[in-house]
Amino acid sequence: MINVGIIGIGRIGRVHGESITKYVKNARVKAVADPFLNDNGKAWAQSLGISEMYTDYKQILADPAIEAVLICASTDQHSPISLEALKAGKHVFCEKPIDHSVDKIKEVLQAVDASGKKYQVGFNRRFDHNFAAVQKAVAEGKVGQQQIIKITSRDPEPPSIDYVKISGGIFLDMTIHDFDMVRYLSGAEVEEVYAAGSVTVDPAIGQAGDIDTAIITLKLDNGATAVIDNCRQACYGYDQRAEVFGTKGAVAIANDSASTTVFSGKDGVVQEKPLFFFLERYMQAYAAEIDAFVEAIVQDTPTKVNAKDGLEPVLIGLAAKKSVEEHRPVTLAEIRAQYKL
Amino acid sequence: MINVGIIGIGRIGRVHGESITKYVKNARVKAVADPFLNDNGKAWAQSLGISEMYTDYKQILADPAIEAVLICASTDQHSPISLEALKAGKHVFCEKPIDHSVDKIKEVLQAVDASGKKYQVGFNRRFDHNFAAVQKAVAEGKVGQQQIIKITSRDPEPPSIDYVKISGGIFLDMTIHDFDMVRYLSGAEVEEVYAAGSVTVDPAIGQAGDIDTAIITLKLDNGATAVIDNCRQACYGYDQRAEVFGTKGAVAIANDSASTTVFSGKDGVVQEKPLFFFLERYMQAYAAEIDAFVEAIVQDTPTKVNAKDGLEPVLIGLAAKKSVEEHRPVTLAEIRAQYKL
Amino acid sequence: MINVGIIGIGRIGRVHGESITKYVKNARVKAVADPFLNDNGKAWAQSLGISEMYTDYKQILADPAIEAVLICASTDQHSPISLEALKAGKHVFCEKPIDHSVDKIKEVLQAVDASGKKYQVGFNRRFDHNFAAVQKAVAEGKVGQQQIIKITSRDPEPPSIDYVKISGGIFLDMTIHDFDMVRYLSGAEVEEVYAAGSVTVDPAIGQAGDIDTAIITLKLDNGATAVIDNCRQACYGYDQRAEVFGTKGAVAIANDSASTTVFSGKDGVVQEKPLFFFLERYMQAYAAEIDAFVEAIVQDTPTKVNAKDGLEPVLIGLAAKKSVEEHRPVTLAEIRAQYKL
Amino acid sequence: MINVGIIGIGRIGRVHGESITKYVKNARVKAVADPFLNDNGKAWAQSLGISEMYTDYKQILADPAIEAVLICASTDQHSPISLEALKAGKHVFCEKPIDHSVDKIKEVLQAVDASGKKYQVGFNRRFDHNFAAVQKAVAEGKVGQQQIIKITSRDPEPPSIDYVKISGGIFLDMTIHDFDMVRYLSGAEVEEVYAAGSVTVDPAIGQAGDIDTAIITLKLDNGATAVIDNCRQACYGYDQRAEVFGTKGAVAIANDSASTTVFSGKDGVVQEKPLFFFLERYMQAYAAEIDAFVEAIVQDTPTKVNAKDGLEPVLIGLAAKKSVEEHRPVTLAEIRAQYKL
Repeated sequence: MINVGIIGIGRIGRVHGESITKYVKNARVKAVADPFLNDNGKAWAQSLGISEMYTDYKQILADPAIEAVLICASTDQHSPISLEALKAGKHVFCEKPIDHSVDKIKEVLQAVDASGKKYQVGFNRRFDHNFAAVQKAVAEGKVGQQQIIKITSRDPEPPSIDYVKISGGIFLDMTIHDFDMVRYLSGAEVEEVYAAGSVTVDPAIGQAGDIDTAIITLKLDNGATAVIDNCRQACYGYDQRAEVFGTKGAVAIANDSASTTVFSGKDGVVQEKPLFFFLERYMQAYAAEIDAFVEAIVQDTPTKVNAKDGLEPVLIGLAAKKSVEEHRPVTLAEIRAQYKL
Repeated sequence: MINVGIIGIGRIGRVHGESITKYVKNARVKAVADPFLNDNGKAWAQSLGISEMYTDYKQILADPAIEAVLICASTDQHSPISLEALKAGKHVFCEKPIDHSVDKIKEVLQAVDASGKKYQVGFNRRFDHNFAAVQKAVAEGKVGQQQIIKITSRDPEPPSIDYVKISGGIFLDMTIHDFDMVRYLSGAEVEEVYAAGSVTVDPAIGQAGDIDTAIITLKLDNGATAVIDNCRQACYGYDQRAEVFGTKGAVAIANDSASTTVFSGKDGVVQEKPLFFFLERYMQAYAAEIDAFVEAIVQDTPTKVNAKDGLEPVLIGLAAKKSVEEHRPVTLAEIRAQYKL
Repeated sequence: MINVGIIGIGRIGRVHGESITKYVKNARVKAVADPFLNDNGKAWAQSLGISEMYTDYKQILADPAIEAVLICASTDQHSPISLEALKAGKHVFCEKPIDHSVDKIKEVLQAVDASGKKYQVGFNRRFDHNFAAVQKAVAEGKVGQQQIIKITSRDPEPPSIDYVKISGGIFLDMTIHDFDMVRYLSGAEVEEVYAAGSVTVDPAIGQAGDIDTAIITLKLDNGATAVIDNCRQACYGYDQRAEVFGTKGAVAIANDSASTTVFSGKDGVVQEKPLFFFLERYMQAYAAEIDAFVEAIVQDTPTKVNAKDGLEPVLIGLAAKKSVEEHRPVTLAEIRAQYKL
Repeated sequence: MINVGIIGIGRIGRVHGESITKYVKNARVKAVADPFLNDNGKAWAQSLGISEMYTDYKQILADPAIEAVLICASTDQHSPISLEALKAGKHVFCEKPIDHSVDKIKEVLQAVDASGKKYQVGFNRRFDHNFAAVQKAVAEGKVGQQQIIKITSRDPEPPSIDYVKISGGIFLDMTIHDFDMVRYLSGAEVEEVYAAGSVTVDPAIGQAGDIDTAIITLKLDNGATAVIDNCRQACYGYDQRAEVFGTKGAVAIANDSASTTVFSGKDGVVQEKPLFFFLERYMQAYAAEIDAFVEAIVQDTPTKVNAKDGLEPVLIGLAAKKSVEEHRPVTLAEIRAQYKL
């Protein structure tokens, strides 16, 4: 049984708190910390039987009974707290992205290597039943030599403009999951990126300097080409599909919905919409990723989404951003050179 | 090239006229006959390049250049014209049912045997791509030993009350196709029938002495049980499904629709309705059954739906009718004894 | 927070123990009891943080801190323990069936009425996301006037012959869930039953005096007809489908599978099989039914599956059994008269 | 009734010959011409009742009773014969592409304008039931403002290397249909193209200077972005899908297969593969496009796929080719400037 502390109890911190308490056999939340801890947060913690609550996460880091921390603070705090936690001898589960700054991520990578501690990044989608089934089929050679990888990722609703402004842009905020999926499903690395972006959802997103719709083409080092289509808003819900096509066949996943109900009436044959919200869609995956993290600690095995897996999608995202800005394909080699990687 | 004559150019007679002209390679419609032949009928025949048109079908029977006739007259004329046509040395394709009277069907059976001519009954559904695919899977042993056979057959709209009155009842008019399907898909014979009927579509159908909704359970001589559900009206169109379940698996067919279009919108994920009308649904099957009939003539092979195949569903239908009337399971042996079969 | 005790920690008792501990917010398992309590059972209880373990369930009934019990003992113990528990002032959740004997169920019904305590029967399928969605659509009038209800219920594997012998027969053991579904989905009562049974899975089931395959036709008091097809073995997994067809349309549910993966290869387009085992298929439903039970206690509202709901499917099952034995349709009135109901 | 002549009776010429004879009401094939006319070709023509057969197409052009010609000769003959036929006062249906040379297409456009005759290009896919249903939904505003258009187009098998060498490259030979689909479905024009190409099917295709796999991103003048994925070989058959996503929803089409059969067995739930070959897949579309051509002549209305519709996909294809060669996005304006359009 591993004692963990959760740093940051906003939306995602609470998701982890609940899923660990309910579904993760070998872990227990010993303490939570949040600079804005209020009555609501205290009541939430108490309802889960968590009695230690701090405003300063350093109290968690100081507790020798806590072996691992979950960093669910705001993005700008991910890398500084990662460094501190590793220094304090904790295993770290860090929400994505590790940082918007490649240099800061590099620091974290070095600290992880030096520490000998486990470090896992919160790419929950790798633990989703659908995506994991595709990955398994590909890894087992069922599709043969990969040729084309397609990912559709459309959100049900755009974030607030305030959030857009600090998000790091669509590629580091939203597509970063899809970049991770390309790497995960293919088992290959991205070599070149071409991104076509547009503003089709809300002009205010464009005024904030971002795009809300994108088609991103990625050349992989296994000879396959991947293409991602993104939109910040799909009126029918959270659209999360993927397909890997190869010489022996294609494996594809459709969306999950709340039931298999089909209604045949005079207006057509109607199925349910995809699950609308990422929390309902990926609830099972949030528990599974922490299960895997705890197992890596207990068994002393590598984490399934390590710090390098946290870095790569950021580099791809930066290449995509540059591609839109300079209206040309951008190689990862170019980005790596820029950051001396 | 076989010359055929069509006797009766109502709806189904015209379907055959058009499909032979367009799709059947080795046959040509030399003449048509209809007691109510009018300008509309003449124009239709001319548009297909058919120049010989009679009011009296005997003129077709008298033409030595015509080798085969299609009997598309009203049901009460099916068996008398069958007998005459066989006597005149013609091969006969007869629309279903051969007759409502078992004794008259028996006469036709004897005449067919005596004549050495080909006789095919218009159970078109056997030539449908979906049903034929199920039959093939079953015949090839793909489902193993058959256990349960399910047929859903619901019409888009009920016939007129006038038609209901002369239809012979739902079992001889509508379910007869499904009885044929049970025999065709299973390759087995029906031994016992239990039918539960009700009036849920239109009270006038009940007043006409018929039912419009039925669940019919059939015990087969191969140990399987079949169940048919019928309704005279399904608001979403013509519902034609089947499933054969056995020890090695289940093979099922869904409805055909006009396109594979799926619309995902805020009200759901919507597919097209099934094709609404039997003519659109089974157009390909009407051509295929005549193709098979012509091939049986040309190759001198048995027809794929012979006179006995025309008799059996009528017997099953009579058993079903008796089951509803007497509110008990009725064996086919009982019906056969009644008709000395 | 309600303290509950679980009586019987075989397979289904453990399912409830785990699901209450993990998913049910307002309940906690204070104690378990099992006459065959062994090390394995003790370890299981401890892993869930349950420290009170007894061999005699009377110790649970004697604990004033326990408000409700779950009766997960063998079927013959369901009604005696129900009576004792009600007498001890406990709310009762009882696994299905309450008893194979109608007279004993009648006793329980009277005891429930006299006690003023909550009594819920374990028809978990009512809490399944798919079946509940069909019920909702029907109750909201989406299908209009009901005409035909179809339920497919096939198990992945037959039980042992030893179990078959004490099971009460397929209708009281397996179809009982489907009888409950007919009542639940339609909101109507069954008036008449005709059942056709056969042995197609294993001759030993026939030798044990039972059948393993059945088609059951049920006439409902709302004018609709229902049909259930059952088989003790489907090689492709647990087949759980339903369809309600009415004047405004049909609502149907397909099976759940582990992922939405589709593989297109040279041998076809392949989806995953249905979930194989009832525990994986209905895990969510087991938690939801206890949630509902706890809510009925806390809110003092009627339980959603009451003692009468436990009686009716047994009566329908007895009618089905008689129908097979006497080879005729059997009315529920006849069964009720027999038991003075 | 329009008399037509078919110039070239290779594969596609014969498709048109048969479909006109069988399905097109208001046209009749009066003559065919082919420089390689042999016994096989003569037998084919005779089987359809076509008695006039020439080796020199000029005899067709010289026949005043022939109002329209279908140009099904080799690609290099499309534009010269188009010019001659228009000069001879014939309406022209020309297989795609009009030419590989933009200048020659320009000549044809001018000749069409000067002639007042009908000119239709053989983009048959516009007449396919699935693609037409998508176009209709989009045109009716069902998807709202278009945002993303996706087309998957994968052939079952690559052409011969000899054919690859004279094909004009994948973009002018295969993707040209998809470029047409983007224009057809969106009702918009392409402004910019970025193409990523690779050789994943057969190295010999690469050695012949072509690619066999491509992802092409297209910016449209309505603000939407389109993406096409192509491969010369999909082991599971002819993969022809499309999706248009917009502010009000997404409309998508799946592949057609030979039946709706689903087999549930121990290895999964298996549907049929997509129809394998373009002739089976688009048979209905070949008849429909000629029907439309004949109607345009008879009604004197514009053809539904005019000479400009024949030019645009060639320009897009040239832009795509340049994009691969120069590894950058290429605007259509750039291509138009090059050809003074």
